[in-house]
Amino acid sequence: MPSYDPNNIFAKILRGELPAYKVYEDDRTLAFLDIMPQATGHTLVIPKAPARNMLDAAPDDLAYVVKIAQKIAKTAMSVFAADGLTLIQFNEPAAGQTVYHLHVHVIPRKEGVPLRPHGTYKEEPSVLADQAAKLAAALKSA
Amino acid sequence: MPSYDPNNIFAKILRGELPAYKVYEDDRTLAFLDIMPQATGHTLVIPKAPARNMLDAAPDDLAYVVKIAQKIAKTAMSVFAADGLTLIQFNEPAAGQTVYHLHVHVIPRKEGVPLRPHGTYKEEPSVLADQAAKLAAALKSA
Repeated sequence: MPSYDPNNIFAKILRGELPAYKVYEDDRTLAFLDIMPQATGHTLVIPKAPARNMLDAAPDDLAYVVKIAQKIAKTAMSVFAADGLTLIQFNEPAAGQTVYHLHVHVIPRKEGVPLRPHGTYKEEPSVLADQAAKLAAALKSA
Repeated sequence: MPSYDPNNIFAKILRGELPAYKVYEDDRTLAFLDIMPQATGHTLVIPKAPARNMLDAAPDDLAYVVKIAQKIAKTAMSVFAADGLTLIQFNEPAAGQTVYHLHVHVIPRKEGVPLRPHGTYKEEPSVLADQAAKLAAALKSA
């Protein structure tokens, strides 16, 4: 597996070189909306520590990212009035990974609404800004 | 969300009332092959503690399950000569959950081979037994 590339776009978001629709941040993780959501409220949770994916992540970093993903999942269920939730994490191109910084997809689901294919639909910035504000506010009081 | 039903099939596997192609077990988790694999080596990791899914799981139980999923993922990559790996976890029927005991899917991927749809292909018992034996042996020395 190739080594970690610090020029991936999530590393740039972590360094503040690119913007993101942030919903949560602490010492070890950052969470923001996927700008190409597979469903409403599609959120990505990443560790601040560098890791290409799950295969090279420190176990404690991975475990902590998933704990935060759980917190976001529970809150997103109510904020987006979801009926269910899919957690997905891709490792390497064969699995569909396209950004090489570990990220966990938290995707709220509605009954009868299939997921859009990964990376096929770009959401409107105003919609993302509104959703991020609502989810971030709910997470602050969660 | 409905409460935990102790008669789900994974609870029966945990109680020894149903068989499984086990690949790993410790005090807190059990891992076994999915008998309807979406790809070769498709493994499920479950906590021994009752939880319907990620939404009601104790955070430490969920985090530990994912640490074990990571260990299995790394080993499965070499045992099944995989090029990548997909981690998926479904919550509630809207997301496609069909067994109501928390489980994380660890699915080795090969370049250019799409995932079979969930629950559409039943693998031969002899193939599963052979794969489980190889993965279990590799995990013992991992």
